[in-house]
This record gives sequence, C-alpha cells and structure tokens, in this order.
Amino acid sequence: MSEFDPHPIGERARTMIEALASISAGDDRLTRLYLTPEHKQASELVGEWMSRAGLSVRMDSAASMHGRLPAGRAGSRSARRLLIASHIDTVVDGGRYDGSFGVVAGILAIEELRARGIALPFGLEIIAFGDEEGVRFPKTLIGSSAISGNIDPSILETTDHAGETLRNALLDFGCDPDALHSEAYRADEIIGYLEVHIEQGPILDQSDEPLGVVTAIAAQSRHRIRVSGEAGHAGTVPMALRRDALAGAAEVITMVEQLAHSGHRDELVITVGEISISPGAVNVIPGDALLSLDVRAKSDEARAHAVATLRERLHQIGARRGVVIGIETVHEKSVVVCAPWLRAAISSAIGELGGPKPPQLMSGAGHDGLAMAHLTDIGMIFVRCRAGISHSPLEHVSVADMGYAVEALVRTILEIAKGNSE
Amino acid sequence: MSEFDPHPIGERARTMIEALASISAGDDRLTRLYLTPEHKQASELVGEWMSRAGLSVRMDSAASMHGRLPAGRAGSRSARRLLIASHIDTVVDGGRYDGSFGVVAGILAIEELRARGIALPFGLEIIAFGDEEGVRFPKTLIGSSAISGNIDPSILETTDHAGETLRNALLDFGCDPDALHSEAYRADEIIGYLEVHIEQGPILDQSDEPLGVVTAIAAQSRHRIRVSGEAGHAGTVPMALRRDALAGAAEVITMVEQLAHSGHRDELVITVGEISISPGAVNVIPGDALLSLDVRAKSDEARAHAVATLRERLHQIGARRGVVIGIETVHEKSVVVCAPWLRAAISSAIGELGGPKPPQLMSGAGHDGLAMAHLTDIGMIFVRCRAGISHSPLEHVSVADMGYAVEALVRTILEIAKGNSE
Repeated sequence: MSEFDPHPIGERARTMIEALASISAGDDRLTRLYLTPEHKQASELVGEWMSRAGLSVRMDSAASMHGRLPAGRAGSRSARRLLIASHIDTVVDGGRYDGSFGVVAGILAIEELRARGIALPFGLEIIAFGDEEGVRFPKTLIGSSAISGNIDPSILETTDHAGETLRNALLDFGCDPDALHSEAYRADEIIGYLEVHIEQGPILDQSDEPLGVVTAIAAQSRHRIRVSGEAGHAGTVPMALRRDALAGAAEVITMVEQLAHSGHRDELVITVGEISISPGAVNVIPGDALLSLDVRAKSDEARAHAVATLRERLHQIGARRGVVIGIETVHEKSVVVCAPWLRAAISSAIGELGGPKPPQLMSGAGHDGLAMAHLTDIGMIFVRCRAGISHSPLEHVSVADMGYAVEALVRTILEIAKGNSE
Repeated sequence: MSEFDPHPIGERARTMIEALASISAGDDRLTRLYLTPEHKQASELVGEWMSRAGLSVRMDSAASMHGRLPAGRAGSRSARRLLIASHIDTVVDGGRYDGSFGVVAGILAIEELRARGIALPFGLEIIAFGDEEGVRFPKTLIGSSAISGNIDPSILETTDHAGETLRNALLDFGCDPDALHSEAYRADEIIGYLEVHIEQGPILDQSDEPLGVVTAIAAQSRHRIRVSGEAGHAGTVPMALRRDALAGAAEVITMVEQLAHSGHRDELVITVGEISISPGAVNVIPGDALLSLDVRAKSDEARAHAVATLRERLHQIGARRGVVIGIETVHEKSVVVCAPWLRAAISSAIGELGGPKPPQLMSGAGHDGLAMAHLTDIGMIFVRCRAGISHSPLEHVSVADMGYAVEALVRTILEIAKGNSE
C-alpha cells in the first residue's frame, strides 16, 4: 500500500467497534438482535456519533437509524444523495465487525470529508439497519426492504421464538408499524448505495489483500434431496443386494463436491449442510436419506447450469443404485450485480491506496444490497477478516485494514463526486 | 425337492405360528417383549404344546420354557441329550416367524419322531428362550447365557426404559433371580445344540432354495468414526479452501462400501447405519461428522483384515482432505463356527429332501447359538423368508418351507442318532 498511514483512522474505528461490542444481551458474548434493548442502546450510540459528525439524525419506522448530510455546494439539488449503510444487529454469539464496521466506516468517512473541508455535489446519508441477520424474526433485511419499497405488510404478523409479533416488537421499540410501507425512498433522489463489509470468507486473507471489490451478490438456491432405498438388516443382506440410501447419499455428496470444484475459484460453491437418515440404527441399512443443498454462483445462468447438471447426475446415480432420488427447490434468489460504475469507482479508490488491480470478489453471503438493488445501483467494498472467520467471537479485522477501508470509502465518494459534479 | 409332501406338517406349523402371533402387546402389531404378560401367555401356550407332545415341562429361573423327552432306548445314558431351541420374544412390531418358528419346529419334530415310533439313543430337550432380541433390557441372550453358564450377575441390576430392574421383572414373572447363576448345564450331558431359524436375509430367496446350512455366526465389530474438519459459511468459503467434514464422511462411506464389495458374496458386510453432523445448518459447511460402522465377516481374520484396510484408507482420506479422522472400536465379537459334524448332519438331511448340495450360509445376525457355543457344539438350519424381510409385519415363510424345515430337523436328529448309536 501507498504512503497513506491507515493507523490513525483505524484506531478511531477500533474504539468505536469496541464501544458497540460492549452492547450485548450476554456478558461474555456478543448477541444483539433486532428490536431488543441492546439494539436500542446501540442505535442511540450510533445516533450520537452521527450527530457529532454533523448529521441530522432520525429513526425510521423499521428502527433503522439515519444520519443525513446535505449537499455541500450551493445550487446542488439537495435531495439527491448517496446512501452508505450497513447493519448493527448480530447473530447469537457473533463477531464485532460484521455489519457494525460498515456503519462505523460510513460515519468516519463523513468525519474525514468534513475534516478535509470537502464539499460534495450531493448529499450523504448513513444508515444503520437493525435487521440484516434475520435471527429474531423469520424475515431478513427488514430495514433495507422498507426504504427500498419492497416490504410485505404480512411480515408484521410474523412472530419471534417467544411468540411476539413484529408489530408489537416495533411498537415496544417506539416505532409505528403502520408507517413501514410508506418508508420507501424515491429512486430519483438516490445516487446509489455503498456498503463496506467484512468479507466473511478467506479469499482476501489468503491473497494477502486488505480490500476487495464486490462484483455481485451471488445467485442462490436451496434444495432438498431425498434418497429412498430399502432398509435392511446390517448382518444379513449381502452387499450386492443392498439399496442403501446413505451409500447413495454419500455418492451424491461426493458428486456435488466435484461439480462445485469444476467451477472457478469463488464463482460456484455448493454445500450439503444437513443430513438425516432413517431408521438410523447401527445395525440397520439406511432406507431413507434427506440432504440439504445450498448452491451459490456468480450468475443466474451459472447457478441454473450447475443445478441442471446436478439433476442429471442424481438421476444417473439413482438408476445405477436402484434408489429413487428426488430434488425439490425450496428457495431461489437471483444474482444482484454490483453496478459497473460503482465497481469502477471503488477499484480506483482502492487502487490509489495499493496495487492497481484490487481483487474482484463475488459475495457468497447475502447483504442489505439485495434489497437496496430494488431501489438503486449498489456497490460494496469487502474488508479482509482473519482466516475468513465470521459469525464467531474469533472474527477479527486489523486496525490497519479498518483504516484502509475507511480511506477507500472516502476516496470512492470522491470518485463518485467526479462523475456527479454537474 | 423329493417326493416328500411338506404341506401337512407345514399346515400344523402355520396353525401354531398363528396362535403364537395372536399373543401380542398391541392389537394390530406383534410385540412380545421379555417378561411381559404376553411373554407369560406365550410361554404357557408353548408349555401346553410341549406337554401334548409328551415332554416334561419346566420354566427355569431365566423364564425359558424347557420340554424334555428322555432317551428312548433301554440302557442309554439318559442324561445325555440334544438341545433344540429358539426364542419366543419379538422386536417391536416384529414378524411372526423370527424365533417362534424354531420353537414350533422343535415341538413338531418331536411329535413326528413319536408318531413314527422312533426311539433315540439320547434325550431331546426343546427350549423356548424368552430374550434373544434384547429389546427390553440392555443385554441380549439372557436365557441361553444362563444355561450355558456365562451370565454376569450384574445384569440383574440393569433396567428397562421404565426403570424396572431385571431382578424385579423376573420376580414379578415368578422366577428366582438368585438362581440364575446356577442354571448352567453340564457340558458332558449335552450332545449339541440345534436351531431352526428364518434366514432374515435374501440369499435363499434369491437362490430359490427353501433351506440352508449355517456355516458360522459372523465375526462382528462395531466402531465409531469421527471426521473433524472446519465449519464455515456456505456462501463465502471457496471449494478449494474447505475442510468439509460431511464431504470427508461421504468419501469414507463410499470407501467402506467398496471395501465390503471386495469380499465374497455373503462373507463380508459393512454398514454405516448412523450419521450425525454439526453444526448441521443448510448454510453452514459441516465441521464435524460422526458415523457408526458395523462390520461382519465369516472369520475373525477376515474381519480384522477388513478393519485394518479400512484404518489405512481412513488415514489416506484424512491426509488428502486435511481433516482428522478417528476410529474407535465399541464392540467386538468373535466368529462362532458351526460344528462340522452338525453341519454334515444338516447337509445330509436337507440333501435327502432336495438337491445334494444345500446352500451353505454365514449368519450375519446374532443368535442364541452365540451363547450356546460356550457350552456345546452348535448347528443351525436356515429357512427361506420372503424377500429376506424380517423384524417387520411383512416377514413371511411359506407353509411348504415350514414343512421342509420340520422334516429336515427330524432327519438331522436321525443323522445325529446314527453317530450316537453306541
């Protein structure tokens, strides 16, 4: 990296991350779910930081905190603004950087812009969403879905594990659930959406790069595969006469792994994360096996092609083994491609700080950008996290990398300003 | 098969099997566990049949029913006797032939011998064991272990699912638990042990043979295999950087299957009957997998060789995948070989009824013979069951096959008498 010293900004980020990490439902682990007292406390702290950075602060009816800075140049159309956001909820026993660092980076970027006396031709708006992880209620991305105008009113009646509805949880939090559907932003007022987020994967760490440009949020589908064979006595059925569902499932898992390996580096990943068999006794040949399948690819075509190939091979395995293999699609999400002009701005910004060719990565994980893409163009900066670990207390980002990330965000905003200087 | 008509005896067997099958804990399924009211009722019925066949009847302290016929020839050493036994307990929702048919066949064989006016140079003793399946208490083969003198007194304190001890269950049944250890027979009084049992496997059915000669009760071992990899996010960890425990386990299962296929027909079977993984979520790469392994072979050497090969291959898979694979032996049982002279007698008997070369089969399932081999030589006749299905209401043996089995038992006893005519 260049002469830029990332440590001073990185240290400020670290202090803020620590302050947020101290707000948790548990003493010895970090758990901060949507619309909980911890969420309220974290929102208040973020609101204070936003005010201190000179932003006008409000909480919307989805409990997202907004801090807005009007355009700095006389005569600019003041409603046009760039959104910079991430989330402040965590998973249970999660890490301190996932989400939180994106909010901290946005606030610090505005502090930097102001400190450097830079006036922008558009407004900036930092948003701290309260629900990205979707741990408490069955729906994810509630905050970003509200402002991007694709909220389904029926979600108000969904309940958490304790049976409380989202409607009541919002009311208790001080939000008006009936205003949720009117939070949608006008697309013509929004320039784009930027998010800084930890990678949550090992690619940057392995390639020794602090930052990467996200190309797309992966196309994703989830499936259930059922292998139906015939149960039997483990001692009395000769191998040649077996129709062992688990042996069939094992061949499926190996086939799936090989299929995924045939894709490029991070362009296709397939995971079997769940398996259950029946009857499931040490001395009984399994008669039935049920697998989950999670497929993510850099394009809808790549995903569809992988699934089609997989179906064909499932059929072959079933026919050869005399077992019936069925596959059912549970869930399907199209790819969300990051806007080329935002990718270019991010690449230039990172390029100024380090090498001219920053890594381009697919995001296998989902993010608020999935919802925001309904409203506007999106761009994302990934930050290296140690060993790719996230959703864990072991999640870690170095002070220097946080500094690089904030500076890259500042320079990305400046790049965007160059193209919006009319 | 020869001019022998199996149907008359087969029909008598069918009637008795139906009478026993009507004694169940459930109205619409057959469940008869050790020391239950159903067991008592079945024992009484068996006792009546034994009396009717001219046997002197007693119940021992393990609740096994014994029916004894003294030697028929003047001057014979009356204490010397051939044991013919099987069990009258079932699994939950079991079949009507497993065990019960062996007891029925023994009683019918004695009726036949008496009807034909045959006097034997040794006594006969039919036994109906009450616990072969080991469903109620954690120990199996309690009846046969008692008379073969290898009962562990500590089993009296083991409990069933309801918390009742074996001691109390025996007392409630009318048995003296403290007499259990003194049930052991004197080896010099016993000529051998014969059991007729359904095959519980598909080999006779597939080879279109009603009866087979059991060569041995398989050597058996049970193991636990643990594959330890690294959990990770299903969307963000590229395939090449994964250490997926389930993918490793799948390769293990396929390897195990191939290894077992390399054995001859029914001489080696290996089964993975249980699998559990963690964390076990659709979007998480499995970090840990636990498998059960059941290995059965026709000799201790074949079993040991298979397990040694398996260990080596586990090591290779682990090294190649960067996962740690451990294997632990939970349970090991040596092969019990059927006595050549009893196999020869059974082969001759079956040969008289059908072809000269009756099938020779390994028993992959355990039987009371495992315990009885501590006391005396054992021999077993297997009877074809439809599609190899057992432990199920679908278990079925044809009337003709039952008739052949009883006649083969009669002729086996006559073969043994030829060699014991001193």
